[in-house]
Amino acid sequence: MQKVNLAEKLAMFSSHWDPHVVASYNDNDVMVVKFKGEFPFHKHDTTDDFFFVLQGEVTMEYEAHDPVTFGPGELVVVPKGVVHRPKAAEEVKVLLIEPKGEPNSGDSGQVPAPKPHI
Amino acid sequence: MQKVNLAEKLAMFSSHWDPHVVASYNDNDVMVVKFKGEFPFHKHDTTDDFFFVLQGEVTMEYEAHDPVTFGPGELVVVPKGVVHRPKAAEEVKVLLIEPKGEPNSGDSGQVPAPKPHI
Repeated sequence: MQKVNLAEKLAMFSSHWDPHVVASYNDNDVMVVKFKGEFPFHKHDTTDDFFFVLQGEVTMEYEAHDPVTFGPGELVVVPKGVVHRPKAAEEVKVLLIEPKGEPNSGDSGQVPAPKPHI
Repeated sequence: MQKVNLAEKLAMFSSHWDPHVVASYNDNDVMVVKFKGEFPFHKHDTTDDFFFVLQGEVTMEYEAHDPVTFGPGELVVVPKGVVHRPKAAEEVKVLLIEPKGEPNSGDSGQVPAPKPHI
């Protein structure tokens, strides 16, 4: 019900691939996250994955489709079951929405990052 | 899976209080909307309501709480059941997320705006 300033939240941590929860929307975590480098390919079998860029530029690579590069004011929803990985040459700041409890690493086998509330 | 540029979508219409669907995230519509003036007080009994400001400034007025004014890079999630109305002296551009089929007018009795896909 209160406002959440995403820049203030992003200033509270410097780690990459480490989503921090800033709000809840129904059964979803609303998170901010910083990407730099590339994440393992993975998919989410039961949920779409929502990415909105706040600052910087990210490329979403797909196993079976052409990559998509997007920047501030642009969003991508990766449908459930689609194998993907975000990749960013320079740091990018992202608003991320996933169902509560969903590991951001999907089925990659990577130990999922915790999602602390800030 | 493709990128959605919100400024491009917002340039496609000029009406106020008229959400346009730009993407789907699970069972939710991801929308852009322009607010100007004030909306009727209403609540959504079964869903939270997600507002993220892209441009301009909006005040969320609550029946039972102090109002909250927020601007670009800031978001507010109005919990289900909370009576609220957005109000904007000047036009504000917003990213809005609500479950598919949810009238943006909630229980206000106002005829819900259609939510065209663009």
